[in-house]
Amino acid sequence: MEQKIGRQSLQFENAPSILSSASVVGKKEGEGPLGDLFDMVCGSDKFGEDSWEQSESTMQKEAVALALGKAKVTQEEVRYVFAGDLLGQTIATSFGLMSYEIPLFGLYGACSTCGEALSLGAMCVAAGFAKHVLAVTSSHFASAEKQFRFPVEYANQRPLSSTWTVTGSGAFLLGSGKSNVQISGITTGVITDYGIRDSMNMGAAMAPAAAKLIVQNFKDFNREPKDYDLIVTGDLGYVGQEILWKLVKDEGYDISNNHADCGIEIFDKEEQGTQSGGSGCGCSATTLSAYFLPKISSGELKRVLFVPTGAMLSQVSFNEGQNVPGTAHGVVLEYNAG
Amino acid sequence: MEQKIGRQSLQFENAPSILSSASVVGKKEGEGPLGDLFDMVCGSDKFGEDSWEQSESTMQKEAVALALGKAKVTQEEVRYVFAGDLLGQTIATSFGLMSYEIPLFGLYGACSTCGEALSLGAMCVAAGFAKHVLAVTSSHFASAEKQFRFPVEYANQRPLSSTWTVTGSGAFLLGSGKSNVQISGITTGVITDYGIRDSMNMGAAMAPAAAKLIVQNFKDFNREPKDYDLIVTGDLGYVGQEILWKLVKDEGYDISNNHADCGIEIFDKEEQGTQSGGSGCGCSATTLSAYFLPKISSGELKRVLFVPTGAMLSQVSFNEGQNVPGTAHGVVLEYNAG
Repeated sequence: MEQKIGRQSLQFENAPSILSSASVVGKKEGEGPLGDLFDMVCGSDKFGEDSWEQSESTMQKEAVALALGKAKVTQEEVRYVFAGDLLGQTIATSFGLMSYEIPLFGLYGACSTCGEALSLGAMCVAAGFAKHVLAVTSSHFASAEKQFRFPVEYANQRPLSSTWTVTGSGAFLLGSGKSNVQISGITTGVITDYGIRDSMNMGAAMAPAAAKLIVQNFKDFNREPKDYDLIVTGDLGYVGQEILWKLVKDEGYDISNNHADCGIEIFDKEEQGTQSGGSGCGCSATTLSAYFLPKISSGELKRVLFVPTGAMLSQVSFNEGQNVPGTAHGVVLEYNAG
Repeated sequence: MEQKIGRQSLQFENAPSILSSASVVGKKEGEGPLGDLFDMVCGSDKFGEDSWEQSESTMQKEAVALALGKAKVTQEEVRYVFAGDLLGQTIATSFGLMSYEIPLFGLYGACSTCGEALSLGAMCVAAGFAKHVLAVTSSHFASAEKQFRFPVEYANQRPLSSTWTVTGSGAFLLGSGKSNVQISGITTGVITDYGIRDSMNMGAAMAPAAAKLIVQNFKDFNREPKDYDLIVTGDLGYVGQEILWKLVKDEGYDISNNHADCGIEIFDKEEQGTQSGGSGCGCSATTLSAYFLPKISSGELKRVLFVPTGAMLSQVSFNEGQNVPGTAHGVVLEYNAG
């Protein structure tokens, strides 16, 4: 089976389809520019639960229910879930998806986990190991701030480089059946350390990993920027985007005309005070599901390189003075006229 | 491709081989009953580093170097690493394996991660997506105690049901080439919540997940306990073993004659004061590599069901009064005369 190409990529002979997807978000996301596009918006960010972590679990559960419902596929027909969240020990995932009783592979790739889950899910379906798998990720502003920065009640000032963790969950049902969107290939990331030590500037920590991944994708698939209608990163934000464009240009490619970032799209910077943009496992997942996938499904975009980016920030390693390395996972999404 | 069997299992047509493996452990593990079998024992548990977390990273790095060296495979020949650790945000893995620059899928399945990594690695090789992949996990007594229980300096009393997190890392090189040990199939776990809320009794949290997984494996493969020379769980310890035997017996199977637990094997309960036994991602990985794999490789054991078990313990969900759900990932290891 000759599907390995280049150093870091696979091109699938039997490209799996994205059969359906769903997005569930919080209040602020619902008030943003994409507000009307999400499948479910919660007015309180609590989703009727007692803690931020439990409400994150509930978002995952709801996103899966919606994705399954749209495709009319039952939980018994899903062979594996590939899922993760930002919190340690993937608690949002474990508690959120437990009741489905589907064999689960827990993942951690920080905010890149959506790309990791789509990649592994696609490999699994392409290999014939499953007819249906789910790829699910989530994040929650309050549970993430508590975990990684300051208690929300402390009301610390947010520098211009800081991003706003998206409260949201996205679920994708992949399968061997046909749909208008295929995952034709993947490019898997390495861990990249650029020496960033500022937990309020995750865009700078992730941009080098994104740049490396995108350039590697061009080389592995023998493509140029113009071969993609759009290159969509996860949550670099305004600060990270600028760094990304420069780093990719240093390698001889100009992506400034066909690059978009989920973190930039999801919030209105001026109106919503979100500084550099949105971030989190839920940012790229909900924005892909609600905003970009419909454009691919309709044929408006024919080929998209989707690159969720992750900063391996941990309160433990951060307090020990370690850098924040970054990673990224690339997924090639293509329109399929059918 | 008809490789899916039952609800949760796969049987591989092209069963991947374990080409080599390596184990790196700390002082206490070196003094235990398996002490002479490990590839590397560090006298100080610090491995020359400044923090427990960094020393855990160093163990992973050394385990990979040893596994690659034994098989005479270079890091450039390895297409993917599937790896994880117990700490939040997989920092031991990110920092430990970064310098290899191999595309990395970060995993989290608590102490079951070794089974999760072997499962995904085996799927990847069996599908023809890679010639070589690595499956790597680690844990460290001091970094885990700090993360999940009390500061080590506090010297809290340890109840009889508590386990001792193993300081160690195991690395496995899987490949499409031939060796004396094959991964012939896998059984993937669901999240199981038995209502356990005691962070000092992880065996009880994990035993129900292990029982469910083992019984499902019997059903999916149409096997009985006697079809396995040995069923090896990860880190149930003495307390968890008793619960496991009972739960499996309730389902009509008796495994009391061919069950072993890595957590029981790795320490001498009387001499080493380790209470119920060893635990952690490093426990099952190092014990499999140093103790059980050589027995399969020599043909002493012909077929082994290896079931690393995980308790999804998080300090956040624990402090919020949540239960500790468990999971388990099963890997069928078979002797191959070649």
